[in-house]
Amino acid sequence: MIKTDILIIGAGPTGLFTVFEAGLLKLKCHLIDALPQPGGQCSEIYPKKPIYDIPGFPEILAGDLTKNLLEQGKQFEPGFTLGERAETIDKLEDGTFIVTTNKGTKHHAPVVAIAGGLGSFEPRKPGLDNLEIYEDNGLEYFIKDPEVYRNKRVVISGGGDSALDWSIFLADVASEVTLIHRRNEFRGALDSVEKVGELKEAGKINLITPAEVTELHGDGKIEALTVNVDGEERRIETDHFIPLFGLSPKLGPIGNWGLEIEKNAIKVDNSLNYQTNIPGVFAIGDVNTYPEKLKLILCGFHEATLMCQAAYRIINPGKKYVLKYTTVSGIDGFDGTRKEAPKAVVQSIQ
Amino acid sequence: MIKTDILIIGAGPTGLFTVFEAGLLKLKCHLIDALPQPGGQCSEIYPKKPIYDIPGFPEILAGDLTKNLLEQGKQFEPGFTLGERAETIDKLEDGTFIVTTNKGTKHHAPVVAIAGGLGSFEPRKPGLDNLEIYEDNGLEYFIKDPEVYRNKRVVISGGGDSALDWSIFLADVASEVTLIHRRNEFRGALDSVEKVGELKEAGKINLITPAEVTELHGDGKIEALTVNVDGEERRIETDHFIPLFGLSPKLGPIGNWGLEIEKNAIKVDNSLNYQTNIPGVFAIGDVNTYPEKLKLILCGFHEATLMCQAAYRIINPGKKYVLKYTTVSGIDGFDGTRKEAPKAVVQSIQ
Repeated sequence: MIKTDILIIGAGPTGLFTVFEAGLLKLKCHLIDALPQPGGQCSEIYPKKPIYDIPGFPEILAGDLTKNLLEQGKQFEPGFTLGERAETIDKLEDGTFIVTTNKGTKHHAPVVAIAGGLGSFEPRKPGLDNLEIYEDNGLEYFIKDPEVYRNKRVVISGGGDSALDWSIFLADVASEVTLIHRRNEFRGALDSVEKVGELKEAGKINLITPAEVTELHGDGKIEALTVNVDGEERRIETDHFIPLFGLSPKLGPIGNWGLEIEKNAIKVDNSLNYQTNIPGVFAIGDVNTYPEKLKLILCGFHEATLMCQAAYRIINPGKKYVLKYTTVSGIDGFDGTRKEAPKAVVQSIQ
Repeated sequence: MIKTDILIIGAGPTGLFTVFEAGLLKLKCHLIDALPQPGGQCSEIYPKKPIYDIPGFPEILAGDLTKNLLEQGKQFEPGFTLGERAETIDKLEDGTFIVTTNKGTKHHAPVVAIAGGLGSFEPRKPGLDNLEIYEDNGLEYFIKDPEVYRNKRVVISGGGDSALDWSIFLADVASEVTLIHRRNEFRGALDSVEKVGELKEAGKINLITPAEVTELHGDGKIEALTVNVDGEERRIETDHFIPLFGLSPKLGPIGNWGLEIEKNAIKVDNSLNYQTNIPGVFAIGDVNTYPEKLKLILCGFHEATLMCQAAYRIINPGKKYVLKYTTVSGIDGFDGTRKEAPKAVVQSIQ
């Protein structure tokens, strides 16, 4: 059982910034995310895209924003349960919560903050028989740890940035990389398309287009695929099949937690602190809705900050919190670090 | 008469970010600030201090935050009325507003956003007779344009960072710099204290301590000062006298605009869009108050953003605004510039 002060569902920018604001109040956070790494959409969907509307950044790549937010919260030592989806919530008699993931990991906390963005990102799956048999047995929809593929034969399917970029990356890791796409045309960053062309020329990527995987074979794990190449069937021996057809966000199991839902988002009280209809459960960032709501990262930062104050009062009943400015009081990390502005000296000039 | 869409009172971080968010909605902003430069407290009080709680910046100097925010809003060509204090507001029959400064400059806009921080910063004045005669006639409480002092004789009074830093800066500009302080000890950044010591040794700053200016002389403008140096009176000929005794924030004339005030801040409707009790007048950032309010820069950013949506509807009645993401749709500046994320290419690999 993982125990924490604030359990955050979703490790996107809003969830990550919560770690920092909670830390200032001496509250510890643990984050659950269905994706294999923190950053949410920013890391998974558009890490190399610039964002122009983060205050103070005329331009920042989404991946760099994630990196900065992780760095900003680091001294407050957040915990992570990654690659697992929050599945069920149970309220205990003492008012605290147990949240269990699809893999059975249990988390216990007095406050739950849902920072689930547009929902958990579910991979678009290919329309093939027997998918369930092979899932996590050679069939993967995400690349969680590239080392898994070292010296293995890998077939990637898809025509977008993920398929291109992972083919490039794995060309140096796997013993054999095959990229299959149902069209001759790829849609991605110019760089990536060109790089795949070069690796194909160099014999480091087998490119098969227009083609589609039509059957999976293997005894309990992937051993081979049937591929339809322009009307002709071909069998490819492989250790892994990774269809990268994009992700689609779904509110998912959270939709069954008894929360008040409106337009696929969780209703919160924006006149106070973004609490949902369940006391102790808050929703912040793109996952929530209220009058005049804007689904912007900067709004999630504000919502997270006000939510932390409410969490403080739940966790420290009767204790009064006085806002201190970081510039004035500095920051004490849970890891023993201290950051503070240089103090003025009082000194006479001779 | 200056005309604009959103008239912003206060050019601190919240006011500056409003320029950007308004620009995305094709609304133009003009900012009034009592200080001689944009940035509010961040520029005037602690430009060299690090802030740790701006989301995405593990650490940023207050002065750099100002610089970044100016850069971010630049393409929306904001106007500025600096060194003047918003004094009166008049609502016209058509519902628009005229705001007049203490120097008589008039501004006309359909929406007014008060982003006045802790209020307008009023300089602490020395307790001397005839101050009014010399104000702006050789007696200045702010340094607006250092070039005014080129090849002039300047006396600065004060013992903090402003007095130290301006003495250092003007040592290369003015023909003569005298720094007077009532104690031998200065309170400031170690660097600055040491630098003043060096400039004193080099004969580029006359340092007189412990001392106090006790009288101003001159026919309609400053010509000389009487200084009490450790009990002994001395006369110093000078062209300028600049007492830098710090600033104290005052809500000031805005307090008389008929706005609902609570705890020296302006009450707003946080359940919608931070409007005050006067329709068309909003208050954002540290100057406002509502249940659970936190006086943090990041909250001002959120409030500014929601306020701009309300401003859009006032200025474009009946027109529907659809939120677009900057990453997807890019940004068109009023100056003809365009910023956008690199587009994906669709290309076949040969």
